[in-house]
Formats: sequence, structure tokens, C-alpha cells
Amino acid sequence: MTSREFTITQEAIDRMTPKDERFGQVMTSLIRHLHDFIRDVQLTEEEWMTAIQFLTKAGQTCTDKRQEFILLSDTLGVSILVDAINNRLPEGATEQTVLGPYYWEGAPHKPMGANIAEGIVGEPCLYSGIVTSLDGKPIEGATLDIWSGDGEGNYDMQLGSDEMRARAVLTTGKDGKFWFWSVKPSFYPVPSDGPVGAMLDAMGRHPNRPGHMHFILRAPGHKTIVTHIFPSDSPYLDTDTVFGVKDGLIVDYIRHEPGTTPTGDTKTVPYHTCHYDFQLAPVSDVEKLKSA
Amino acid sequence: MTSREFTITQEAIDRMTPKDERFGQVMTSLIRHLHDFIRDVQLTEEEWMTAIQFLTKAGQTCTDKRQEFILLSDTLGVSILVDAINNRLPEGATEQTVLGPYYWEGAPHKPMGANIAEGIVGEPCLYSGIVTSLDGKPIEGATLDIWSGDGEGNYDMQLGSDEMRARAVLTTGKDGKFWFWSVKPSFYPVPSDGPVGAMLDAMGRHPNRPGHMHFILRAPGHKTIVTHIFPSDSPYLDTDTVFGVKDGLIVDYIRHEPGTTPTGDTKTVPYHTCHYDFQLAPVSDVEKLKSA
Ligand SMILES: [Fe+2]
Ligand SMILES: [Fe+2]
Repeated sequence: MTSREFTITQEAIDRMTPKDERFGQVMTSLIRHLHDFIRDVQLTEEEWMTAIQFLTKAGQTCTDKRQEFILLSDTLGVSILVDAINNRLPEGATEQTVLGPYYWEGAPHKPMGANIAEGIVGEPCLYSGIVTSLDGKPIEGATLDIWSGDGEGNYDMQLGSDEMRARAVLTTGKDGKFWFWSVKPSFYPVPSDGPVGAMLDAMGRHPNRPGHMHFILRAPGHKTIVTHIFPSDSPYLDTDTVFGVKDGLIVDYIRHEPGTTPTGDTKTVPYHTCHYDFQLAPVSDVEKLKSA
Repeated sequence: MTSREFTITQEAIDRMTPKDERFGQVMTSLIRHLHDFIRDVQLTEEEWMTAIQFLTKAGQTCTDKRQEFILLSDTLGVSILVDAINNRLPEGATEQTVLGPYYWEGAPHKPMGANIAEGIVGEPCLYSGIVTSLDGKPIEGATLDIWSGDGEGNYDMQLGSDEMRARAVLTTGKDGKFWFWSVKPSFYPVPSDGPVGAMLDAMGRHPNRPGHMHFILRAPGHKTIVTHIFPSDSPYLDTDTVFGVKDGLIVDYIRHEPGTTPTGDTKTVPYHTCHYDFQLAPVSDVEKLKSA
């Protein structure tokens, strides 16, 4: 009588006659792993009901400004796993990380050297570096789509602003160099008042991400890269709740006393400098890794 | 660089310091099986986004009258698997099956022999049988909580009725026997206008359940049983979309021409008789199987 515990899996798989072969492949594997999980833990009826209620609440927490299932994916390490599988990069290329929920398409184009965070709370920071191809050649016409929260960890969206703040798109010239002023970003918690927050709490996990500056780098003939850089002195670098940190993305921010900056401005408050170089992989190199 | 594809799983598991040991055990297994699934199918970013949107829509389809995640669980064979794991019964006991979404607590107590489906569309059927313990001894004071859709496959709830129809609770006397009039239930589709309906369609599956009469049997000292009986001539017996059919629950309905019935009534339309005996397992026998 108990054999249904084992036969049901193949029965559910065999019931399909999918129109799309790939869909059938994905659902076959999903059913197999889902059933294996349930048998593995001998899921009780009460736990099953808890799971149903969790999923329902997660769906009902989603709005056009909040995506609780992406947050669930992020906090279970699923998003970074999907990223790793789909974005295998050649040795030496700048690594990817998660996009996060605060990307806002259509940031204003600004000239090199602009202060993209005017009026934003936080300690000023001069970012600079060079965008090159894997062979070290500077890339002309690369765009950097840049965004971050402020020095207290809040994004413009979260502050109820309809106006973009601390966001810009810059384009490199012949030398591939970039430089701009923004702030040194602070760590912040992911939204933790919903079911995922309750899950993290039950897991004994905090909801925080270390401070980070977001970048999307696009350049003709090169693979687009979605990434962050992280100040090396930020808290939570070892326990980013969305598993987004990679060693190669951690950077020293150098703190300076008030005075004349490398761009010739005079700062009356302490400021930082942060240097980071991006290496983009040619599309042809990436294609070779696709089926690796 | 691609090794994160493999290290992320243990990293996500190690991040937990759960307050509740069982919660940690369940989440560890969930993360492991979920990541294995993603690696197994090499889930693309587009497929990941489709999954996020599917889950979001499922949550938003849920209301106090509709539970899309239970439907998802039912149609993936998860509900019947959880049932099988949690309700191991000794040989000879009447088998369980899914509860379904149309149970309505507090059905009226009716005397033995009542017609519980007055005014309901469908061919009349006289149900009869005996409730015994595993040793064959009749059980006095067993209750049968009975419900079904009508002869066209619609439940009272679905017809927008605030009044219960085709539902009753009967209590056995000393002889353990029961008999009542209702209808021969029709096959019906599960709600198929939501994301689960779209999933079934993409799987090449129909949304139908074979006809069935629901029962919950309760008796002092015996394990409560949630089950159905299915007319042996119903369509979809082999492909119940929630995997609820078990051979031992399929029963012949015998059709009779209009005339005097076994209970002495005169029917002016054709009617059926359906005989089914229930064997309930003593609680002590069930406990022995718990850790089997
Ligand atoms: Fe962020
Ligand atoms: Fe039903």
C-alpha cells in the first residue's frame, strides 16, 4: 500500500505529453526533485500546509514595486546559481553578480567626471578606472550604467522619489577611462517585513547586504556584464544575504581628509577614492564556454 | 570561476543557524534539491523569470474561495505523495485519497436513509454498506461526513449557493450499517483558467477528475479516513488530474429502471445502487506503522 510513495513520481511524469520538448524536460526534473525532497524529509501534512500558506503569502506580497519571489530566489542562493550557470566567463573577465531589485532603466547620460549623487546623503567618493578587453586594450564607447543607494543604504525608489538619484550612464572615450563622483554606499537590509523576512529569521539569518555600487557594462563585441563593487571595509561581506559577493569585486576605498581632490575640486568634508578596472570578455570567447 | 555553480549549495546551507532543528533539516534538503534541479536542467535566465512570474500569478490567483498552490500541489502529485507518507495504513484498511477543495465543515446531521441531495440535478443513487474495524466487527457510532458535486459535476459552492447541498453527516448504529440517497456524481474539471490550468495545457494534460463521492470516516479508537469512492464507469479514472484514484476505491454503480427501490420508495426515473464497505484501522495498528 505504501508503494504509491515511490510510484507516484513516474506516474506524474508519464502523465505529460508536452507540446514543447524543453518544457517537458524541465517539468520532469522538477517533479523528480520535488518528490525526492518530500520523501527525503518525510514532509508532514502540517509542514505541507505551512508551505502552501508561505507561497500564497509570498504571491500576495508582490506588487509592482516589490517582488517577494525574486527575493526568495535571491536568499536561497538560486539567483546567483542561475547567474553562474548562464554566464560562464573566461579567466580574467570581471565577474557578474545579481541585478537586484533597484535597477531603474533609462538613467541620464552624464559627462565623464560628473557628480551623479548631488544632494544625496553619504561621504563623497571619486570612482575611477579603465574598461578594457581581455587582452588589456582600452574599449572606446563602452557604457557604464551605474546606480547605488545613499550613504545610509536607501535607494531613491525607497525614499518615494519619482526622480532618479545616484544613477547615471557614462560612455568611455578612446582611452577607455572612466571617473565620476558619487557616495560610498552603505550596507542595507532587503525587505524583511514579509514571508521571506520571516523565513530568514527562522533560519537564524540577518537580512543585510554589504554596501555596493551597481554597474552594468556594455560594449560593442563584448559580453554585457551585470555586477557590483563592494567596499572592502563594509560589514556583511562574508554573509551577504543574497550571496552576491565575489572576491574579485571587493575594492579598497581610500579615505582622504578635506582638501583638493585629484579632479581639482575642493572638498570641505572627508572623501574617498575608489579605483577599479573592468575587463570585458569578447562575445566570441564567451560563446566557446556556453556548452562547457 | 564556474565552481560557484557547485559551492553555492553548501554555502547557502551553512549560512543557516536555525532556531528549530526540524526547520533546518527541511530547508537544508529543500535548498539541496532545488539547486540540483536547476543544475540538472541548466535553467536559463528566461526560464527562471517564467518561474518567478508563474509563482507570482499563482499567489495572486488565490482568494478565500480558491487555492491555486494547493491545486498546483495536487496536479504535480505532491498532495497524494504527502498523503501516502503521512497515512500509512495496515493491509485491509480502506485507502485514503485527497481532501479536495470543496469540503465544507459543519454539514447537517441526517437520519440513516435520508435523501441528502434533494433538488439536485443528477440520477438518484442509493448508497449502502457497513463500517467495520479491521477484524470485520461493525463499528457503532462511526460518522460518515459525505459530500459531492451534482450529476453535472458542480458543487454547491461553485453554483454560488450559501446553502449546503448534497452534504450530510450520518452516524452508524450497532450494526455499523449506513444507507442514504444522493446522486451519481459526474466527472468535473479543476479550476483551469489560472496559471495551473495553463501549466496543465502546456503539459498536454486535461484538467478533469473522474466522478467521485467524498467521505470522511471518523470512529472512536480508529484512524480517521479521508477518501472518495469512484463509479467504475466514469471517464478519466486512468488519468485523474490530481492522481486521487486507487483501485480499491472504484465501485460498480448498478443502474435500475424506474420502479420500487430497496428502501421501498417508488422512483419514476432510472436510479442506481452502490454498495461499499469501509474498514477502519484501529489507532494502535496505525501507530505501529508510523516509523516503518
Ligand atoms: Fe543594491
Ligand atoms: Fe471532489
